[in-house]
Amino acid sequence: MRTDPRVGAAFFKAHGHGNDYLVFEEGSDLTLSPDRIRGLCDRWRGVGGDGIVVVGPGSDGYAANLRMFNPDGSEFERSGNGLRVAALWLRDQGRVGRDPFRVMVSGDEIEMVVGEGSVPTVRVDMGPVTFPQGPPFVRPGVVDAMGQVPIEVGVEALPVAVGNPHAVVFGPGWGRVDLARVGPLVSGHASFPEGTNVQIVHEVGDRSLSILIWERGVGRTTASGTSACAAAAAAVCTHRIASGPVDVTMEGGSFRVTVDESFRVVLEGPVEAVCSGWVDERWRLWAGEP
Amino acid sequence: MRTDPRVGAAFFKAHGHGNDYLVFEEGSDLTLSPDRIRGLCDRWRGVGGDGIVVVGPGSDGYAANLRMFNPDGSEFERSGNGLRVAALWLRDQGRVGRDPFRVMVSGDEIEMVVGEGSVPTVRVDMGPVTFPQGPPFVRPGVVDAMGQVPIEVGVEALPVAVGNPHAVVFGPGWGRVDLARVGPLVSGHASFPEGTNVQIVHEVGDRSLSILIWERGVGRTTASGTSACAAAAAAVCTHRIASGPVDVTMEGGSFRVTVDESFRVVLEGPVEAVCSGWVDERWRLWAGEP
Repeated sequence: MRTDPRVGAAFFKAHGHGNDYLVFEEGSDLTLSPDRIRGLCDRWRGVGGDGIVVVGPGSDGYAANLRMFNPDGSEFERSGNGLRVAALWLRDQGRVGRDPFRVMVSGDEIEMVVGEGSVPTVRVDMGPVTFPQGPPFVRPGVVDAMGQVPIEVGVEALPVAVGNPHAVVFGPGWGRVDLARVGPLVSGHASFPEGTNVQIVHEVGDRSLSILIWERGVGRTTASGTSACAAAAAAVCTHRIASGPVDVTMEGGSFRVTVDESFRVVLEGPVEAVCSGWVDERWRLWAGEP
Repeated sequence: MRTDPRVGAAFFKAHGHGNDYLVFEEGSDLTLSPDRIRGLCDRWRGVGGDGIVVVGPGSDGYAANLRMFNPDGSEFERSGNGLRVAALWLRDQGRVGRDPFRVMVSGDEIEMVVGEGSVPTVRVDMGPVTFPQGPPFVRPGVVDAMGQVPIEVGVEALPVAVGNPHAVVFGPGWGRVDLARVGPLVSGHASFPEGTNVQIVHEVGDRSLSILIWERGVGRTTASGTSACAAAAAAVCTHRIASGPVDVTMEGGSFRVTVDESFRVVLEGPVEAVCSGWVDERWRLWAGEP
């Protein structure tokens, strides 16, 4: 059963290529009910963010224990950018140094490292991705011999799980107009019972990809760490690119994704600190606190 | 000639019905060039806001000297919500008390008063509105005998200036679909050389109005103080409502607008504090500071 985290009023905001997260420390000021999470992520009536990371104390050699929340208030497994933003916060607090360190996220161990400089490169080991052929992300019996889901004539999507569901469509030369049509079509397709994030891979180089992203429940989005991982892993899986480092360019910027032979992926890119602050006690959703 | 303000890194964020502003004090940390203003208002890569108010010291009995900036970096005359958010900040700082106080905004004197409570009502005297029949907001010769601009069959817009340009369309029973068609049509109409904000008044009661808003350069927006003022003044001007207090309901909430016989308008509604904080020194647009 989910317990709503209790946090302090102080927050830190940073982003990776425009995908921004708020970091709160466990504390005693505010209970993060789904309502309050929606309120905090609201960009006009709240602080504003693509999600929230709650940082709790680590133990057994882990630098911290993290929980991640979507702007709709739901808790989720992991976000590449959310993890990387939290890593910068841990580094700022002096709780980690220059060496790789490990955190716990929903029972999984994740290794990260924060580089030098004012907009440091932060690397996160996202663990192995898988190519699901059945529940919970894919309806039984819809995957073809190539591991792909036929959507309509000329559109096949390769399901990829990076903690959360993705579906990669190779559409060489496709642009935003195609994304606007194919994105919602695949994302809401009956073959994906929980819905899916969608990546259109429109250019494939020797060691690089360009992708367009349609996010489940959001629509077109300009950057996503897990989407970059899904696309790179799909390109390796379908033998379009050999395993190793792949530069994945999105509308918002580029990540480097390293895919090994067992489809373990490491995500690497800049994290930019934006601001720090504290939620005002008069903020309406603060009211009713025990 | 415009001088870019120098401000401190600390900010305050509050909103009126979801129309949010960032307040910065004059200081020595950061020059607010148009680029930096765009960056700070960016909701994904910056702090995020519908505009910025810079608070400078007052003199000659004025509590403060304010400057207001749009998210595109341009300076503008006044925003009802921007003024009201700044008023709450001045009250928080103890620079004003419970009595009405005056500030200077682009050479104009504005009177405000902040009520009690955690989400106080803040009242601002917006000064007289006018119904322009010519430049700069209206093309010469396009206004008819009723003071209105014919747009197409069945659509006439009444130009109203509340510092900035507005055009009020009375469309009883109209909804969002009408706004989506009429909003951009009026906003970009050749009769309004600088473009115009558009209000559709779709319900008129004895002492109340309901409006839909299309903001110049933004599109549909759920709340705007100057839009509420324009709509109420237009209703009084066209004898739909007698002068006095008018409750103006927008999608985001309600303002009370009091219109006197000389079309001086007072805007009143809640201001909700969201957060306080400081811009991170590592924020990329901070770089290059002298």
